[in-house]
Amino acid sequence: MPTSAFLQSLGITRPTAILDAVQARQNIRHMAQKAAQANIRFRPHFKTHQSAEIGQWFQTEGVTTITVSSFSMAHYFVEHGWQDITVAFPVNVREMDAINRLASQIQLGVLVESLATIDALQRGIQHPVQVWLEIDTGYHRTGLVWDDGDRILSLVRHLDSVEHLEFTGILTHTGQTYYARSRAEIQYLYQETTGRMQSIQDRLQQAGFSCQISIGDTPSCAVAGSFAGIDEIRPGNFVFYDQMMYQIGACRPDQLALAVACPVVGVYPERGQIVVYGGAVHLSKEALVETSGRAVFGYLQEIENGRLGRIAYDAPVISLSQEHGIIDVPPAMERKVTVGDIVLISPVHSCLTANLYPFYLTLTGENISRIR
Amino acid sequence: MPTSAFLQSLGITRPTAILDAVQARQNIRHMAQKAAQANIRFRPHFKTHQSAEIGQWFQTEGVTTITVSSFSMAHYFVEHGWQDITVAFPVNVREMDAINRLASQIQLGVLVESLATIDALQRGIQHPVQVWLEIDTGYHRTGLVWDDGDRILSLVRHLDSVEHLEFTGILTHTGQTYYARSRAEIQYLYQETTGRMQSIQDRLQQAGFSCQISIGDTPSCAVAGSFAGIDEIRPGNFVFYDQMMYQIGACRPDQLALAVACPVVGVYPERGQIVVYGGAVHLSKEALVETSGRAVFGYLQEIENGRLGRIAYDAPVISLSQEHGIIDVPPAMERKVTVGDIVLISPVHSCLTANLYPFYLTLTGENISRIR
Repeated sequence: MPTSAFLQSLGITRPTAILDAVQARQNIRHMAQKAAQANIRFRPHFKTHQSAEIGQWFQTEGVTTITVSSFSMAHYFVEHGWQDITVAFPVNVREMDAINRLASQIQLGVLVESLATIDALQRGIQHPVQVWLEIDTGYHRTGLVWDDGDRILSLVRHLDSVEHLEFTGILTHTGQTYYARSRAEIQYLYQETTGRMQSIQDRLQQAGFSCQISIGDTPSCAVAGSFAGIDEIRPGNFVFYDQMMYQIGACRPDQLALAVACPVVGVYPERGQIVVYGGAVHLSKEALVETSGRAVFGYLQEIENGRLGRIAYDAPVISLSQEHGIIDVPPAMERKVTVGDIVLISPVHSCLTANLYPFYLTLTGENISRIR
Repeated sequence: MPTSAFLQSLGITRPTAILDAVQARQNIRHMAQKAAQANIRFRPHFKTHQSAEIGQWFQTEGVTTITVSSFSMAHYFVEHGWQDITVAFPVNVREMDAINRLASQIQLGVLVESLATIDALQRGIQHPVQVWLEIDTGYHRTGLVWDDGDRILSLVRHLDSVEHLEFTGILTHTGQTYYARSRAEIQYLYQETTGRMQSIQDRLQQAGFSCQISIGDTPSCAVAGSFAGIDEIRPGNFVFYDQMMYQIGACRPDQLALAVACPVVGVYPERGQIVVYGGAVHLSKEALVETSGRAVFGYLQEIENGRLGRIAYDAPVISLSQEHGIIDVPPAMERKVTVGDIVLISPVHSCLTANLYPFYLTLTGENISRIR
């Protein structure tokens, strides 16, 4: 069945997040098996899907430990039965009540990187929490600079003296892999990160502290051959992947599991464009910059045999307003598209796109709810 | 009271949309008075605020006609008592049920620009609707090209033959004003648009059709001195304005009515940066490109005398992840900021930012709900 007819058969009338559940489950299984073979802890980041039902797919693969990026997200997953959660975001000390509520209910892990935060926790914390020291291994977003060993050791010593704060290990997000241009470059950055983390671990162990290592970015976890020296991985995006991940070599096109269905509202032969009901509030404004310098917000994609299929790289989304998306289409494609058709768009960044929807619709017509 | 203390006194612990209600109401009153003085219809676009309560502030100013950008948004405002609504988005023919339901309840206006859409309406429409022909006056997003008079006249003739479709006039969104670099350029584009719309109106009137003219962009409506020859205006963004509107000269800094409160989670003296809990899912990825070529996602702003105040253009948000925002800050400011403080960010595009929140918090601590 052609893509538009298939999507119409699902009852779609407005912009809708479409999930290839078969592929998402394969992505989950593949990463879970990779972690199991390496004999390390798999603590997937649930900020990408933020769905209790998709969480169950991880449980099926034996996952019991997860990562989230806010206390409210942690609260949602606790309500859905999760008992061991790391909030992989520097502690927001204004939410001390939420921290204590969670720490009283589950095994809670938090991220710390400054004396100011440790002091605030010391004043407010009432229950044991696992504390990870966040390390900046080169991304320069958050974390202690990896080669400032004196400061890192001093913070661990300080942590060790505070009741309820249980130093667990060092954690990093190697976000620089998202700017890589090849699998080889991702592999290089992964090795560099691992080396930097192990140098800290050595120093802390020499000072008498046992110290786990946690790494988190999807590109590293997708590309790394083994995880020697690592204790846990926290990838998130891999559950859906997206055009950004494909472009840097972190996934194959057939691993993409999320797309957005959009009704066509205008066809413009004189410009070689179509316009869809599907804008920045349906795709997000995240862009890929093509080698030509043009910013692209997604590409048309087909449904093939009831699964997400071919991606039309000759049909990019080149402009987004709040609710309109403008798509350049080649003449042959344009002649086939009419007002009232529904097209499918493969997004640039699945995490930000998913965040804009209250639910996912699977290709077999099931609604998969998300956090609201 | 300093900004952080003031925001803490409001009980803020997480990223929160902050509304200067006094300023938003002044913005509403100012635009309503401008329309009244010009003796034209004011049909504000509610896609910016999407709030029943803010809608009431318009009612106080005598507004009874509104614009929205989707049938679901129309449905929300019908539920809150609005009876005359134009859906200023090319008709999505897949939502015929929604169109008929709305058309049976209220005075509904829709946008048409193609024979395909008219044919679909002809097959499905069961109640009278006002039809606006959308005209492309140079923005090249949607609409009939303004100088293709033959095609426009032919579509109006066709429309005229279809039961329930009541041709009302021509409508345009002069989106090119958002790329203007001065008030003079906005004024020029407004005059150009008006001239183009009037040339169509003349032709249609010569052919025996009465034809109103509706224009819609906030920059034109904010800058235009009078509205000679125009029948209605549909600005939306002006209720809050934003950094983009300020940069192009469409508003003054003191007219900005929306900002985002974000807890500080990291301070990095070695980089001259702070990191806040406030990322792409709290601000949107809409960026301004500064003359240096740097993309900026917002600027720090102060609270002064309980109102939105000074904007720190030396403290830009230079990077956003899903939940993290990185802000460059000058040394003097950085020395004053600590983990646990709450800072305020003036967003680049208030419509997209507002869309990410379930409610607004006013500076007097009131919750103003939004569509969910």
